Amino acid sequence: MEEIKLFCAATIANISCGFDVLGLALDNVGDEMIVRKVSQKGVKIVKIIGQDLPLETHKNVAGVAAMALLSKIDTDFGFEIEIYKNIKPGSGIGSSAASSAGAVYGINELLGRPFSNHDLIEFAMQGERLASGVAHADNVAPALLGGFTLVRSTAPLDVLKIHTPKELYATVIHPQIEVKTSDAREILRSSVPLKTAIKQWGNIGALISGLYTEDYHLIGRSLEDYIVEPIRSILIPAFDSVKTESIKAGALGAGISGSGPSIFALSHGAQNASQVASAMKKVYDKVGIAYDVHVSKINTEGIKKLQF
Amino acid sequence: MEEIKLFCAATIANISCGFDVLGLALDNVGDEMIVRKVSQKGVKIVKIIGQDLPLETHKNVAGVAAMALLSKIDTDFGFEIEIYKNIKPGSGIGSSAASSAGAVYGINELLGRPFSNHDLIEFAMQGERLASGVAHADNVAPALLGGFTLVRSTAPLDVLKIHTPKELYATVIHPQIEVKTSDAREILRSSVPLKTAIKQWGNIGALISGLYTEDYHLIGRSLEDYIVEPIRSILIPAFDSVKTESIKAGALGAGISGSGPSIFALSHGAQNASQVASAMKKVYDKVGIAYDVHVSKINTEGIKKLQF
Repeated sequence: MEEIKLFCAATIANISCGFDVLGLALDNVGDEMIVRKVSQKGVKIVKIIGQDLPLETHKNVAGVAAMALLSKIDTDFGFEIEIYKNIKPGSGIGSSAASSAGAVYGINELLGRPFSNHDLIEFAMQGERLASGVAHADNVAPALLGGFTLVRSTAPLDVLKIHTPKELYATVIHPQIEVKTSDAREILRSSVPLKTAIKQWGNIGALISGLYTEDYHLIGRSLEDYIVEPIRSILIPAFDSVKTESIKAGALGAGISGSGPSIFALSHGAQNASQVASAMKKVYDKVGIAYDVHVSKINTEGIKKLQF
Repeated sequence: MEEIKLFCAATIANISCGFDVLGLALDNVGDEMIVRKVSQKGVKIVKIIGQDLPLETHKNVAGVAAMALLSKIDTDFGFEIEIYKNIKPGSGIGSSAASSAGAVYGINELLGRPFSNHDLIEFAMQGERLASGVAHADNVAPALLGGFTLVRSTAPLDVLKIHTPKELYATVIHPQIEVKTSDAREILRSSVPLKTAIKQWGNIGALISGLYTEDYHLIGRSLEDYIVEPIRSILIPAFDSVKTESIKAGALGAGISGSGPSIFALSHGAQNASQVASAMKKVYDKVGIAYDVHVSKINTEGIKKLQF
């Protein structure tokens, strides 16, 4: 195999009570990427379509992730990467993670899979470090593994794939405003009341249980975040209305995607997820904020190989 | 049915990262109780064997729990209760919960089950309020439902039964020292660093996942408590040695049972759990502290009906 074409999924991280640990991959929202074996050693980003992002390898998340992989293996050839961006940077649905994950996945395939998916997460995290200053796995893990992923521990890295209920759908609305990840991080308090933390871990435990037992009501009841959402939602216009209207329209629950500004909702069934999309749009239509909306089932595969 | 004889299981609450939310029931450690329909209204504790506990209904946890149930239903008869205590009060394996749970379970059976198990938890919690000042569900939930239980929320009460891996065994050692629940509570800090809380909820999510997938190694890796154990273990002599030796002997993990002083370990298989018991005993033999030790599979039924 000399080249490979990939679908690199958008992802939702920080799923409510699963702040910093729980993410999921979307099925029909993502970038495309071509990774090609070339005789010249190293990694070259030869084309980026759809966004104005740096082509220099060391300034591009895909390049940095790819180089992290190549630093662990000897090859007498190199790789070219073409990126077709559909995910907007700064939207809160894992734009940088899709590129980092795609690059390491593609190179690993072309090398005959010397590395496990778990190894690939660690390489892709180096792209995240470039993007946000922190080598977090919240988005690259679901991008690579698909489904719901739980980061049990970052050092040492320990990531689990969690069962995905068959009829679970996500709705995501991206209001066209900017929330800087650094602002979203700085606004957080460094400590939390023990009582609130206990509520949070009761909810994350219950959410994981609901995913395994496909108990949609339980999933809904567990989608609560008493710690981060009350603070970060201040940065997102009309967050409370979007959430309330989503739940009125039938969503199981809703919350901030990543560090925002995108807002996600989970629903039982595609029809419900579409109704939720309509309800979300109505809120931003009223306040006059432009948006993108996505309705997607959960992607249980992660990166997908595409036909040329 | 005029009377019923019950096995009321001992329970482990505060399972490591599941502090205040996750508990389990033991299979071969517990009290026996006889509940009998009598013509006189109300609840009378007629016999307590094995421990010196108050017979007055309003001073006895079984009496208080039973009265909480009877306050919700009209009957023109009453109940007598005989309690055969095997679980030592103050041991940290749910002595009061066994009595509270048994009383409400027995009465509900004799009444033809007008209440759900979830209702019974709320009544039994009133016994816990008498015992410790707080109407917590951590022990009464597994005592009534069996298996692992997760208290997602206390107000409103929302308790889940979690899948129990078939070959999971518990070892419990009860050093004969007193740790007051009130002391164990006061020693806790009222707030925790966000970073530590995130570790905790990564672990509880992973532990729940490990229980559903019967992944014993994952269960072991997830049995970490960075918040409560480091503080409370100071109150338990030789805690660190007992834990370390348990894990050396093959335990998946170990922690404080309830608010102590009992220490529990979970193991894959009965033989391993017995080896862990030997390792625990050795530690207390060396420091000269008397103890009780229990090795038990996880009880997935909860309260059991016994033959007379």
